Amino acid sequence: MIYNFSAGPCTLPKQATEEAAAAIANFAGTGIGILEMSHRTKPIEGMVAETESLLRELLSIPAGYEVLFLGGGASLQFCMAPMNLLAQNATADYTDTGVWANKAIKEARKFGKVNVVCSSKESVYNHIPKNFEQTPGATYLHITSNNTIYGTQWKEFPKANTYLVSDMSSDILARPIDVSKFGLIYAGAQKNMGPAGVAVAIVRSDILGKAEREIPAMLDYRTHIPEKSMFNTPPVFSIYVMNRVLHWLKNLGGVSAIEKINIKKANQLYNALDNSKLFKGTAAKEDRSTMNVPFVFREEAVAADKKEALEKTFLKVATEKGLEQLKGHRSVGGFRASIYNAMPVEGVEKLVEFMSEFEKSL
Amino acid sequence: MIYNFSAGPCTLPKQATEEAAAAIANFAGTGIGILEMSHRTKPIEGMVAETESLLRELLSIPAGYEVLFLGGGASLQFCMAPMNLLAQNATADYTDTGVWANKAIKEARKFGKVNVVCSSKESVYNHIPKNFEQTPGATYLHITSNNTIYGTQWKEFPKANTYLVSDMSSDILARPIDVSKFGLIYAGAQKNMGPAGVAVAIVRSDILGKAEREIPAMLDYRTHIPEKSMFNTPPVFSIYVMNRVLHWLKNLGGVSAIEKINIKKANQLYNALDNSKLFKGTAAKEDRSTMNVPFVFREEAVAADKKEALEKTFLKVATEKGLEQLKGHRSVGGFRASIYNAMPVEGVEKLVEFMSEFEKSL
Repeated sequence: MIYNFSAGPCTLPKQATEEAAAAIANFAGTGIGILEMSHRTKPIEGMVAETESLLRELLSIPAGYEVLFLGGGASLQFCMAPMNLLAQNATADYTDTGVWANKAIKEARKFGKVNVVCSSKESVYNHIPKNFEQTPGATYLHITSNNTIYGTQWKEFPKANTYLVSDMSSDILARPIDVSKFGLIYAGAQKNMGPAGVAVAIVRSDILGKAEREIPAMLDYRTHIPEKSMFNTPPVFSIYVMNRVLHWLKNLGGVSAIEKINIKKANQLYNALDNSKLFKGTAAKEDRSTMNVPFVFREEAVAADKKEALEKTFLKVATEKGLEQLKGHRSVGGFRASIYNAMPVEGVEKLVEFMSEFEKSL
Repeated sequence: MIYNFSAGPCTLPKQATEEAAAAIANFAGTGIGILEMSHRTKPIEGMVAETESLLRELLSIPAGYEVLFLGGGASLQFCMAPMNLLAQNATADYTDTGVWANKAIKEARKFGKVNVVCSSKESVYNHIPKNFEQTPGATYLHITSNNTIYGTQWKEFPKANTYLVSDMSSDILARPIDVSKFGLIYAGAQKNMGPAGVAVAIVRSDILGKAEREIPAMLDYRTHIPEKSMFNTPPVFSIYVMNRVLHWLKNLGGVSAIEKINIKKANQLYNALDNSKLFKGTAAKEDRSTMNVPFVFREEAVAADKKEALEKTFLKVATEKGLEQLKGHRSVGGFRASIYNAMPVEGVEKLVEFMSEFEKSL
């Protein structure tokens, strides 16, 4: 049994991937495989519509919001968001909580004024900044709801003067959210929703059409809304895997149910770190992510010149035991366990057990 | 046995789809499924690099060209091409050969001057215009190499004053091409290469960086070149299916071999149409596509008030016989058989046989 702690693309519900694989041979009893079926057929149109319905239900998306399935990943949304929302002379507020937040900032600067209202860069993004001032009249306030690399997460969303725009790639569907606080939520699928290749945009339609610029058709949310994400050929298979993941989540009890499991998994791992003499977490306790848990050797436990070799040993033995993809991001070092929705409780238990064994073996 | 004549997404080599489905359970012996494996792992990086090599080999792509795998489909390339290549005050020449050519034209107008140098619109795009003048000093000449809806195909590419830019979505890999005539070739995968969700861009690197505008990172070819299509998470699974399709094509003898088969299939179908008293092709003979074959009832054979009912009957009986997705595009009417690379010769034989039976039964 392998437990895959990759930060993304990452572990998915086994049932969902099995259903997706089966549909490649024969989709919905049509005799035609899902990779080979035109998006302009009733079975595919129905599947995409159902995927939207499931997302609406699971996230309690209110009326007035559109749900789009788009190619290009969240990285394309970094430019689509300001291109569609931010006028050239207007200001958008951005919070700087890590590498991905910075990529969003960089793209927004190409379309309007950007005010970086807070940053935790000086402490290697180990916390979520609190108490910052918003720009009067700013069009929106942008946040990265969960910071995959640093393992920090906005536990309470800041109250935007107007509306929030959020990259939710790494914790969408992990907990209930109040969508009405957001003008735009976007997320690459490849953490909690499905495989790489599709991004979701949930946009309040009344904020569109105010940026006063010509937008290429494919980059204009207004193109995709009346076409139900079928303006061009959408990434059908990625949407289908998402469909199967959403069914799995719904059967499991939805977002409230998975939140309880996520908290349980995260607590188990953080407790182990807090009680360890060898390991420690790197993120500020109050901002700890339930999705990504970076950890390192305690400085007092491992001499600086022994650290690299011991990290390698830990990763090697972990891999031998089926605990894979635990290497930390280079900017934080050490280790990172990504424990998204689809990571079973047993995976975290096995990891905690192994960490304890490893500590005792030294 | 079902033969799927869909215009795209469309039939794929059975072997390729079976291999892709198997990789969902376990990719390359890693024990981890391909949907769940990080793009920053050696197996995935190796697979993407191999896919590029296969494309380079199959299309004989010369040095000086970059090969990129991008999300968003060819529709995103409609804006990326002029955004990257066409300066605001410069002119690009576009040939108007159908709906998709028009979409490319519409996007290009957002970035520079566009001169539509020829059009076959007045004859419902039933032929490829010949003998047109290019704009002196135009940056490039854009063509749609094959027109899916109308079943026309550039048999000889026009000689551009500078370089050609081509949407090759519906006939890439169907025949050998001289890549050196092109500055940029782009193509959605979902005809001859794989499933929806990835587009290929083959770009001569020395034409980049001359458009003199700020380009969002994700839309700038120069972003993706040094990152080997891994600037962000690429559509991994779609690339993998392409990888399997390219292996299939290589084993079959490559593009020259498939061209012979494509010509054989197309000739068989066009000969049947030319010899039929009931059916006829709609495209000019000299421009007939080897990929998409639109056909209608001959006016002298079917009374106008009987046409619609008889079309329905033809499609219904065809479907019962496993000949699926033969309905024509609404702008041409009638029927369309898409006979891409992966359509077996037997599929065309069955169709021709059925058309003959149907004709005799009236």
